[in-house]
Amino acid sequence: MREISILGSTGSIGTQTLEVIENIGDIKVSGISGNHNIDLLEKQARKFQPRYVAVMDENRGKILQGRLRDTKIKVLSGMEGLISVATLDSVDTVVTSVVGNVGLKPTFDAISAGKNIALANKETLVSAGQLVMDLAKKKGISIYPVDSEHSAIFQSLQGNEDNPIRRILLTASGGPFRGKKKDELMHVSAADALKHPNWSMGRKITIDSATLMNKGLEVMEAKWLFDVSANQIEVLVHPQSIMHSAVEYEDGAIIAQMGEPDMKVPIQYALTYPKRKKSPFPKVDFTQRNTLTFEKPDMKTFRCLELAYRALEIGGTLPAVLNGANEIAVDKFLNGKISFLQIPELIELTMNAYTVKYDYTLEDLLEADDWAKNFATGVDFR
Amino acid sequence: MREISILGSTGSIGTQTLEVIENIGDIKVSGISGNHNIDLLEKQARKFQPRYVAVMDENRGKILQGRLRDTKIKVLSGMEGLISVATLDSVDTVVTSVVGNVGLKPTFDAISAGKNIALANKETLVSAGQLVMDLAKKKGISIYPVDSEHSAIFQSLQGNEDNPIRRILLTASGGPFRGKKKDELMHVSAADALKHPNWSMGRKITIDSATLMNKGLEVMEAKWLFDVSANQIEVLVHPQSIMHSAVEYEDGAIIAQMGEPDMKVPIQYALTYPKRKKSPFPKVDFTQRNTLTFEKPDMKTFRCLELAYRALEIGGTLPAVLNGANEIAVDKFLNGKISFLQIPELIELTMNAYTVKYDYTLEDLLEADDWAKNFATGVDFR
Repeated sequence: MREISILGSTGSIGTQTLEVIENIGDIKVSGISGNHNIDLLEKQARKFQPRYVAVMDENRGKILQGRLRDTKIKVLSGMEGLISVATLDSVDTVVTSVVGNVGLKPTFDAISAGKNIALANKETLVSAGQLVMDLAKKKGISIYPVDSEHSAIFQSLQGNEDNPIRRILLTASGGPFRGKKKDELMHVSAADALKHPNWSMGRKITIDSATLMNKGLEVMEAKWLFDVSANQIEVLVHPQSIMHSAVEYEDGAIIAQMGEPDMKVPIQYALTYPKRKKSPFPKVDFTQRNTLTFEKPDMKTFRCLELAYRALEIGGTLPAVLNGANEIAVDKFLNGKISFLQIPELIELTMNAYTVKYDYTLEDLLEADDWAKNFATGVDFR
Repeated sequence: MREISILGSTGSIGTQTLEVIENIGDIKVSGISGNHNIDLLEKQARKFQPRYVAVMDENRGKILQGRLRDTKIKVLSGMEGLISVATLDSVDTVVTSVVGNVGLKPTFDAISAGKNIALANKETLVSAGQLVMDLAKKKGISIYPVDSEHSAIFQSLQGNEDNPIRRILLTASGGPFRGKKKDELMHVSAADALKHPNWSMGRKITIDSATLMNKGLEVMEAKWLFDVSANQIEVLVHPQSIMHSAVEYEDGAIIAQMGEPDMKVPIQYALTYPKRKKSPFPKVDFTQRNTLTFEKPDMKTFRCLELAYRALEIGGTLPAVLNGANEIAVDKFLNGKISFLQIPELIELTMNAYTVKYDYTLEDLLEADDWAKNFATGVDFR
């Protein structure tokens, strides 16, 4: 049986990945990892019987080890534990669903160890797109996108390997504040921003979705995954989230992937590719979902998207800085320390204060991330 | 250089095929054929310099022969001429864009001679779907659909050869009378019915589009082309004609092909498959084409669609009878002999009067067609 590891099994994508595996049935989960939610990790470990469980937090790792002493499951901890789970010999695919830059190192090590990647950790490509794609090519491994948009693009590319892409249409729901202008967004709360209209996701990504930074990060991912330039990627606001993205070819034909907004479809495709498996996931009824609309994104109000295009164009280590600054900005917003409109302000301040490096290693990217996080943490708007 | 023949080069699809070939440039047209428009045939012959031109009408064939005596082009005539053009040794693909059952015999002979088919003649699959697909399989040739809907389905199947189809979503513009009820359709004229909102097509197919018979014939074609059952094909009215059709897989993913309504895109894909070539055809701007809507077809008002599903379900030689009766009914409507609502009435009368054959040959199908045409011609509603 095919074996996989899941980095970040307790998060939104991680838990849905386990649901998918339970449904399709012929995949063995050999390793899982989490940050601190050891209650859920214990439950998952007892149910899926992986050989290894890694916990980022060392103390909690010890507690979990005690709890699982009646089993054969080994508990590892820290970044080393995460990397062990990412590079297990018997595993052929690693699902990288950790959130944030912490996913970089284990993803690199997994690729170096020849593992295919089912990629849900955006930061891997946002910060290190060039390095990751170069390494993936060198190692001859495949990267299967898990994001619904990138999976849609990937699905729309099947059977067209030799046909140049004219344009990628990257759809965006527009988030909970679509259509609103700056004066209406001055005083929105974290709770308002967490009410996403279509998708059920983690907190960080839900805020990124409200600011459109999520879409900006996805533009970067798409650039690296599909080897196109930023100006070939057109963000299209599509509030119903039925068309998950599309590819336009040079003959004018557009191939789109559609479906109900349900992450389990792209997760499953990343695990079963190139096969599709029967699923109980909801199917689209177009006589109910009878109106699909499209509009241009408002980059003047949702400045994060514009900042992302800018970082991508300038390139080098700047996307890593944007990403690090964004993590801090979102955290500050969730903790009531900055307002919604100060999220792009803080990111831009950080980007402007930074000197971009063009010849860089993974270490440089992690340093850039650290630098950005420290800088952004230190900024006080009051 | 690759060589093709075009059966029906003076019709709507035929002329657009020649435009496409002029644009892509690396295809030699070795044979063309027409029914009676020898002025256009002469023009096409002088421009594309085929080796053979076939004219159905023998007398006009002789006139064209005289007109082209200053060239090396050979003029043939009648069904034999058509078949010669369809089976030229050097040709690898035959575009079958003749309208009506007259396309059956030459298409069969082309397949027997090992030619791939770029299929625009619906009747080939509507009447003889089983026989054609069996022969195509036996001869190992490919059938590339030219219809925008079937091309969309074909494009949506690429890279999914091993993935079972859950559902085909066959889109329909709904024609010029969409939303109208029977009492509003009592007195519509041929001129009204010829005003199609999105597509520029021949007269027969435009009327078929107004009655939804066109969609009924397409359901039949889809059944044979893609080896699905009738209840896996869902007709979806989509007035904007941007989504040209879609395939839903068992995991719930829908792959759709979209584009501006322009037959030249599917024609070109049928000729360049699996490659796509750069084209000057208009591209979709979703910020302009910003609303796509879908609705159930009204089969109570547009009874032709229901009759087509019925003929497909009963099977045997009945689809050939439906198709023959429809040709006469449309002709009578265009000539003011019957009303719009009498089109399905005449077809149903003919179907009900017929005894279906289940063990049949191509000759039986042509006989069924003759029978239906004679019967339908003889019916007088006054």
